[in-house]
Amino acid sequence: MMLLKEIAKVIGIAYEGPELEIKGMNTLLDASEHEISFVASSQYKADLENTKAAAVIVPLELITSVPESCMALPCEESYLKMAILSKYFTRPILDDKAPSPIIGKNSQISSKAHIENGAIIGDNCTILAGAYIGLHVRLGDNVTLHPNSSIYAYCEIGNDVIVHAGSVVGSDGFGFAHTKTGEHVKIYQNGNVVIEDDVEIGSNSTIDCAVFGSTMIKKGVKIDNLVQIGHNCVIGEYSIIVSQAGVAGSTTLGRNVVLGGQSAISGHLDIAPFTTFAGRSGATKNIKESGKTFAGFPLMEHRQWLKIQARIAKLLR
Amino acid sequence: MMLLKEIAKVIGIAYEGPELEIKGMNTLLDASEHEISFVASSQYKADLENTKAAAVIVPLELITSVPESCMALPCEESYLKMAILSKYFTRPILDDKAPSPIIGKNSQISSKAHIENGAIIGDNCTILAGAYIGLHVRLGDNVTLHPNSSIYAYCEIGNDVIVHAGSVVGSDGFGFAHTKTGEHVKIYQNGNVVIEDDVEIGSNSTIDCAVFGSTMIKKGVKIDNLVQIGHNCVIGEYSIIVSQAGVAGSTTLGRNVVLGGQSAISGHLDIAPFTTFAGRSGATKNIKESGKTFAGFPLMEHRQWLKIQARIAKLLR
Amino acid sequence: MMLLKEIAKVIGIAYEGPELEIKGMNTLLDASEHEISFVASSQYKADLENTKAAAVIVPLELITSVPESCMALPCEESYLKMAILSKYFTRPILDDKAPSPIIGKNSQISSKAHIENGAIIGDNCTILAGAYIGLHVRLGDNVTLHPNSSIYAYCEIGNDVIVHAGSVVGSDGFGFAHTKTGEHVKIYQNGNVVIEDDVEIGSNSTIDCAVFGSTMIKKGVKIDNLVQIGHNCVIGEYSIIVSQAGVAGSTTLGRNVVLGGQSAISGHLDIAPFTTFAGRSGATKNIKESGKTFAGFPLMEHRQWLKIQARIAKLLR
Repeated sequence: MMLLKEIAKVIGIAYEGPELEIKGMNTLLDASEHEISFVASSQYKADLENTKAAAVIVPLELITSVPESCMALPCEESYLKMAILSKYFTRPILDDKAPSPIIGKNSQISSKAHIENGAIIGDNCTILAGAYIGLHVRLGDNVTLHPNSSIYAYCEIGNDVIVHAGSVVGSDGFGFAHTKTGEHVKIYQNGNVVIEDDVEIGSNSTIDCAVFGSTMIKKGVKIDNLVQIGHNCVIGEYSIIVSQAGVAGSTTLGRNVVLGGQSAISGHLDIAPFTTFAGRSGATKNIKESGKTFAGFPLMEHRQWLKIQARIAKLLR
Repeated sequence: MMLLKEIAKVIGIAYEGPELEIKGMNTLLDASEHEISFVASSQYKADLENTKAAAVIVPLELITSVPESCMALPCEESYLKMAILSKYFTRPILDDKAPSPIIGKNSQISSKAHIENGAIIGDNCTILAGAYIGLHVRLGDNVTLHPNSSIYAYCEIGNDVIVHAGSVVGSDGFGFAHTKTGEHVKIYQNGNVVIEDDVEIGSNSTIDCAVFGSTMIKKGVKIDNLVQIGHNCVIGEYSIIVSQAGVAGSTTLGRNVVLGGQSAISGHLDIAPFTTFAGRSGATKNIKESGKTFAGFPLMEHRQWLKIQARIAKLLR
Repeated sequence: MMLLKEIAKVIGIAYEGPELEIKGMNTLLDASEHEISFVASSQYKADLENTKAAAVIVPLELITSVPESCMALPCEESYLKMAILSKYFTRPILDDKAPSPIIGKNSQISSKAHIENGAIIGDNCTILAGAYIGLHVRLGDNVTLHPNSSIYAYCEIGNDVIVHAGSVVGSDGFGFAHTKTGEHVKIYQNGNVVIEDDVEIGSNSTIDCAVFGSTMIKKGVKIDNLVQIGHNCVIGEYSIIVSQAGVAGSTTLGRNVVLGGQSAISGHLDIAPFTTFAGRSGATKNIKESGKTFAGFPLMEHRQWLKIQARIAKLLR
């Protein structure tokens, strides 16, 4: 918790308003009346006008869009200021005062696994040596964590989930603001990862936590080895992600999407349900029509890709 | 062990034949007279005719090819039925009753490494903190397991092998059968990984176990970091696999194959000995002639790739 | 330490000169008067002429360039001989006689982390369960090592560094000499990794140690998940390397280079400061002019890449 006055000081601006207590940071639309938010571009003007946040870090040109209920902290480089402030609202990753972990019936926990305080583990789980379960993590029933897998603090895992060796759930999303002189200021990632039931995650894959809210791996998703899922992604039900594929931050896949090996999807995209991407394909635009198959980078429909390959083969003769 | 009657119940069919005891699942050709097998397509008709399996899950249209010695379990979606059944024949990954590990002379085992029951470790090994050695794993002499590497149950490692930090040997192959409504049913992977002598595996690489039988990493193979080897692959003697390359399941590389960085090979292929793949190349067809160098995706001979690049460069001017 | 006579025996040549004591191996230019060096091609003739090494493994045709102060060990396959010898100069990764670790003020070390002898850890560090800190590693102040991260022996990490779960710092570089019959002889990697202040490394990334000297990750670099950095690379200040990108050995990036996701840079290159590589791009040549943006593989300027993509799109209609 921080006083608005202190916040103003941290981001280097004068503040003369009331002494509000701020309990957290959040997006414009998700912020409660005890939280501070931020806006960096006029693209989010409508969100700003509708925010319930107690206060907002705002560029000068958007100040007239700040609602009456919200204290404005006008400044330059509002995105950078948000990053600087994010450090002060980080959650702890260790907490001596949190309650001891609670472990369900018939769960086998290796003495060489590690379970932080506040964790709640369901029934019939198998937690092998070297697995790490962070502060306040929740596991459902019948979860298997293979050796040296790591579940970061605050993540939530459903029932019948398998996480293979070395995989990481909930590491910090890759988010930074940049100074004018080219340094990077970490945006502390205060969200988590939620993994629904019947998910299997291969070995040495990585799923980043959300900056705010949750990265979602929905029911029945199957993820292979060495796969990267960026922060704030939503992976739709029963999607399949083959080895060494990557999904950049804030992208949403509909249900039953298939990503072939070494394929990639850029950030902030929406991919329609039942879309299939061949191996090594790369998507940089939204896919609106469901049920199609794509290939190549730049991406094209698979049948077009086959035609082009045939032409190239001809040229080569 | 399971009675054939129980198996029929699990896969939802009627069974009126003799009460056979089934001890395992296997492929048509490798199944013994105490094992059950399956067939999903007429492509395997000859294998079916020659199987020694006690019983077989078989589509109706192939029932006439089942040998007399083999009980047929005719059904629709035989592949899916096999997947459903595979769960019942999974091996345990923990076993209180297996004997204590046996450790050879002069082997140094960190107190923070973990060795499951039934493991047998040779002489002069170095097992660093956080390394995991699963149930019934065998290590030869002079093996080094670096921190937080994981060797799954039942894998076998030869002499003079180095496994670097975070690498995973024997995680489940990525195999699923699919229901008509788009859900995925895990095919439990009951094989292992066999690593022969003089192999070195870099950090955070992943080698999946076979669904049946063994994924093979043959003598003198060198694997770099973040490499993926799929289930049932055979990597030929002295092959070199550079960082971030991937080999999909059931592919066989001949000896002294070189895979450049970020290259990939599709599943179920045969690659001739002494084939070289440049970085980022992608093979989707068998390579029959040995000693050639390839590049690009789609793949072509390296000299053709160079020509095309020269043409593109011209176009760009 | 080894006598020159013994060294000659190991590499299979006759030696009649004085009985010098050799304390290590190094490059021609970095070798001291107590070290042995090697040369494999006339490309390094000038370095050979200026070496201060006590002795040098040298091909016959370069023997006249060996300085008087340096004992020549003339042989065929000098590179292979160096590899064979490198094993004898490897540093230990465990040492009972090294002093107990020293841990600074207010550092929290999990009882399930592992710290080898000789390690020195600064103030206010957080070392989570499963983290591994090797022999003689040095960590600055305010370093966070997440679960199951591994720092190999002799690496040095500055202040305010974060290493996420499963990442590996200092694993052996991928270096081998090859025999005429196609076997690979490991070149033992005797360097380390130096990570400067304010660096963040994502989860399951790998940074190899140098063969001699140091792989350098300079101040303020931010590395995402599943990234590979080869041995002897220098990553310039404030560079950003996005998920699943790879940099091959001995490449130097200037400051503020940006590597997009799944991009790659070949080995032994120099990349000018402020260069940006789009996702999936692949560089195989030096970049001399700073501040440009590239894409594609083969690499071209981003605006050219966009043009070509537009043409391809037209062709497809």
